[in-house]
Amino acid sequence: MSKKKVVLVVEYDGSRYKGWQAQKFDVDTVQEKLEYALSKIANHSVGVICAGRTDAGVHASSQVVHFETASERPIRAWTLGVNTHLPPDISVVAANYVADEFHARFSALTRRYRYVIYQSEFRPAIMAKGVTWTYKDLSEQKMQQAAACFIGTHDFSSYRAIGCQARSPIRTVLNFSVNKFGQYIVLDIRANAFLHHMIRNFAGVLMAIGAGEKPVQWAKQVLDAKDRTQGGVTAPPHGLYFVDAQYPDEFDVPKIPLGPHFLPFKDEAL
Amino acid sequence: MSKKKVVLVVEYDGSRYKGWQAQKFDVDTVQEKLEYALSKIANHSVGVICAGRTDAGVHASSQVVHFETASERPIRAWTLGVNTHLPPDISVVAANYVADEFHARFSALTRRYRYVIYQSEFRPAIMAKGVTWTYKDLSEQKMQQAAACFIGTHDFSSYRAIGCQARSPIRTVLNFSVNKFGQYIVLDIRANAFLHHMIRNFAGVLMAIGAGEKPVQWAKQVLDAKDRTQGGVTAPPHGLYFVDAQYPDEFDVPKIPLGPHFLPFKDEAL
Repeated sequence: MSKKKVVLVVEYDGSRYKGWQAQKFDVDTVQEKLEYALSKIANHSVGVICAGRTDAGVHASSQVVHFETASERPIRAWTLGVNTHLPPDISVVAANYVADEFHARFSALTRRYRYVIYQSEFRPAIMAKGVTWTYKDLSEQKMQQAAACFIGTHDFSSYRAIGCQARSPIRTVLNFSVNKFGQYIVLDIRANAFLHHMIRNFAGVLMAIGAGEKPVQWAKQVLDAKDRTQGGVTAPPHGLYFVDAQYPDEFDVPKIPLGPHFLPFKDEAL
Repeated sequence: MSKKKVVLVVEYDGSRYKGWQAQKFDVDTVQEKLEYALSKIANHSVGVICAGRTDAGVHASSQVVHFETASERPIRAWTLGVNTHLPPDISVVAANYVADEFHARFSALTRRYRYVIYQSEFRPAIMAKGVTWTYKDLSEQKMQQAAACFIGTHDFSSYRAIGCQARSPIRTVLNFSVNKFGQYIVLDIRANAFLHHMIRNFAGVLMAIGAGEKPVQWAKQVLDAKDRTQGGVTAPPHGLYFVDAQYPDEFDVPKIPLGPHFLPFKDEAL
C-alpha cells in the first residue's frame, strides 16, 4: 500500500501543555494529542514531525507538521475530521497533500516567532497565559535599537539555554522588529533556525533595556561575550508564539494569515 | 469602629467559573474567589456587590464592585495585595475609597458589554474560550442595520431568558454598534440595564441575520412579538465581556481603558 505525505498547519494554546514534544512520562503534550487525533482518522498509528518544537507554555498560530499515512482521505478529514478528536486548545487550520521529499523540519528555510508583551500596572486576568506581563514602562525604541545587533549571522552562545543540544551556536537572524500597539509590545523575529530559549533570552535582555535598567549597548555586549552566564533572565514562555515557517515554493504548504489572531497587525510581511 | 466603602474595578476571564454569583454548592465563582481574597487583606469576612452579575463563561474587563470594611488599608492593599490572593484569571485593576451612598449596582446609570465574534473556517485554539467562533461569513452591515431597532426604550420580552427574574421587561438601549476588525466582529452595547441573556439573544438573532439565514427585519419582528419563543438561539457565553459601568461623577469610580485589551479599538466613546 502506497503511503502519502500530508502537511498540516496547527494552531495551539500551549498554556496547559508540557511543550510540543511527546514524552515518556504521562504528561500532556501537543504532539501526543495531535498524533492521537490523526490516528483516529487514519485508522492506524501516526507519527508527526514539526517545523519548530515549542517549550512548555509556548503557543503556535501556525505550527507546520507533516506525517505519512496509508489511508486515503479527503483533505477535510485531516482538518475538520481531526479537529473533532482534538481538545479545544489545539486546532488544525489547514492541510494539503505534499511531495514525498517534503520534511516539516529539514525543508524549512526560516522560522518566525512573535513575542507579545503586555504593559500594565496590574497583571492581566484575560489572556493571562497568552502574554508576558510587565508593570514596567518599556521604551520600544530602545528595544528596537538594541535588537539591531542580532540581525545577521552570529555565534549566539550567550542567548542559548545551558542545556541546548544544537551542534552549533551559529544562527542567522533575518529580521527583528519591535512594535508597540497600545499596551502591547511585540517582538517579531525571523531566522533560519533558533537555539533553545533563544527568543526568550532575547526578550529578557530587551525588556531590561526597554525598562532602562541596562543600556542599549548591553544586548551587543552580551552577544559578543559568547557566554550564557553574561546574559539576562529568560523571559516567560506565555508571550511566545510560533507564527510561520517558510518552505521552497515547490512544496504546496498552505499559507495562513500571520497570528496570533488577536493581534491587530498580523499580515505585514517581513 | 467606622466602616469605609471601597470600589474596585475587576478584570476576569470567566471561562472556568460558574458565573459571578457565589452559590451554595461547591462550585467556583468569581464572587467567592474575590470575597476570599478581600477577606485575607481585610482580616474580616467581606461581602461584595457588583454592577452586573455575569453568567457562566462570561468575562469582564472592568466589572465594578463595592464592599465595606472596618480595616484601614492603603489603596495598594486593595489592588496589589488582593491580587496576591486571587487566581491568575481574576485581577483587581483599580480601587478607590468611595462615599457611603455609593452602591455598585443601584448607583450605576448604564452598563456596557462587548460581544466578540471570530470568523474563520476552522475553530480557534488560541482564545478558544474568549471569543464566539463562527465558520459562517457574516455581513456586519446587515447586523448593524438590524441592531438599529434595539435602540431606545422597548419591551424586550422576546430577548430575555425564560427564567429571567427581572420585574419588568422594559429596558433602554442607548447605543448599539457593530464593527468589523479583520476576522473579528464586535457588538458594543450600552443600556441602562440588561435582562438575563439579553445580549446573547441579540447576538443569536444578529448572527443569523449576518449569515443571511434571516432577513434584516427579523430582529424587529422578534422584538415586536414580545415572546421569547419567537426569538433565535442564545449565542454562547465565550464572546461576552462586561466592559464598563457609568456612575454619577460625584462618586470617584476609577476609569480604565475599555477592554477587552486584546481588541485593537478599546478607547472610543459611545
